[in-house]
Amino acid sequence: MKIDVITLFPDFFTSGLQSGLLGKALANHIATVNLINPRDFAPDKHHRVDDIPYGGGVGMVLKPEPIFAAVNSVPRLPSTQVILLTPQGSPLTQNTLQDLTTNYQQLILICGHYEGVDERIRYLADREISLGDFVLTCGEIPALALINGVVRLLPGTVGKVESLKAESFEDGLLDYPQYTRPAVFQDWQVPEVLRSGNHQLIAQWRRDEQIKRTQQRRPDLWEKFEERSQESK
Amino acid sequence: MKIDVITLFPDFFTSGLQSGLLGKALANHIATVNLINPRDFAPDKHHRVDDIPYGGGVGMVLKPEPIFAAVNSVPRLPSTQVILLTPQGSPLTQNTLQDLTTNYQQLILICGHYEGVDERIRYLADREISLGDFVLTCGEIPALALINGVVRLLPGTVGKVESLKAESFEDGLLDYPQYTRPAVFQDWQVPEVLRSGNHQLIAQWRRDEQIKRTQQRRPDLWEKFEERSQESK
Repeated sequence: MKIDVITLFPDFFTSGLQSGLLGKALANHIATVNLINPRDFAPDKHHRVDDIPYGGGVGMVLKPEPIFAAVNSVPRLPSTQVILLTPQGSPLTQNTLQDLTTNYQQLILICGHYEGVDERIRYLADREISLGDFVLTCGEIPALALINGVVRLLPGTVGKVESLKAESFEDGLLDYPQYTRPAVFQDWQVPEVLRSGNHQLIAQWRRDEQIKRTQQRRPDLWEKFEERSQESK
Repeated sequence: MKIDVITLFPDFFTSGLQSGLLGKALANHIATVNLINPRDFAPDKHHRVDDIPYGGGVGMVLKPEPIFAAVNSVPRLPSTQVILLTPQGSPLTQNTLQDLTTNYQQLILICGHYEGVDERIRYLADREISLGDFVLTCGEIPALALINGVVRLLPGTVGKVESLKAESFEDGLLDYPQYTRPAVFQDWQVPEVLRSGNHQLIAQWRRDEQIKRTQQRRPDLWEKFEERSQESK
């Protein structure tokens, strides 16, 4: 997977791309990340990338020319998605991450600006993705989240395929409670069933807890899960 | 605002906290961020922070002792929230960011582990927050998003208060389209109303676009907006 990031803050990514499992995966060439600064593509001598909004209002808006030039400078592989990170996009989901990992060789990510991007920049994008219903100062954090979530799904990043399968959202339910040693910590005991060695009982307990937890915490996810169960009957 | 982050990957944050508007805000002491590594609090000589899960399964689970010790090592201000970043938490929203900014002097963020945390670690947290319905290798990216979103709302980070007000989600609708120079770019023109100088027409156009865009892209948000409008009548 080749990932090109159009960003006014390439320095933002330095430590985030080097750290932890993602850092290891990139060091192992499971994916490559290139950072492209639209400022280098600004046509005027002041390398101006933003300007005041038409119609008034405070804050600066990202100009279209440098972004178009930066995106068009990127060599394309046969299957590429250009993605604009913006609060107006579709909220990121695990399905989106899986789709991107499975169906594309290259992602070109355009990081938005905290005050807004010129509407015409949207014409560059195959899709627009939002990290969620909140506002950040920049699109760099959403881009980093998307890179992390995509690279995590590539073979070789997480040790065993099973450790992907067991996790949250893969089947639309929240994860079950996890416990490790010590068996007793500050009077809180690990549930006995988990220490029983009875794998059938453990599997049943975990499923029950997933369902209970999803019902309690995320009735919206539970409703969708039930709809899907009905449909597949 | 004082923010303490319990993280196994303090290096992850280096460049993300230095870059852009967030970097400026922290340099200006609008907020302080401290990074605490639970590995320094692991009781055994190998500084072990995770262990295999009870009941079987692949992957490692974060042990409770180092996290409890790390959290308890943090001096507390009078109003503190301890937040566990986990996919099983409540999805982050702009309302949550506003609540945290308005009502607390200190946030203690516990970054989860990519394969899971011992259930008893939850007892430390006042609330659990998820970045969204997707899985990342670590809780460091959600923590960085939360820090960015909270610090952005503190006075002094974003130049003018009005530039916060006009943005997405503040009133539950998506943002209106923004345009800046040039007036014509690759045959795409800036809508004439925005160049009319008629502020009343511009305000009306922007509101109409916000509504249209929210209806088209996010029927879920539009439904909530209508419910609130009904209630306030």
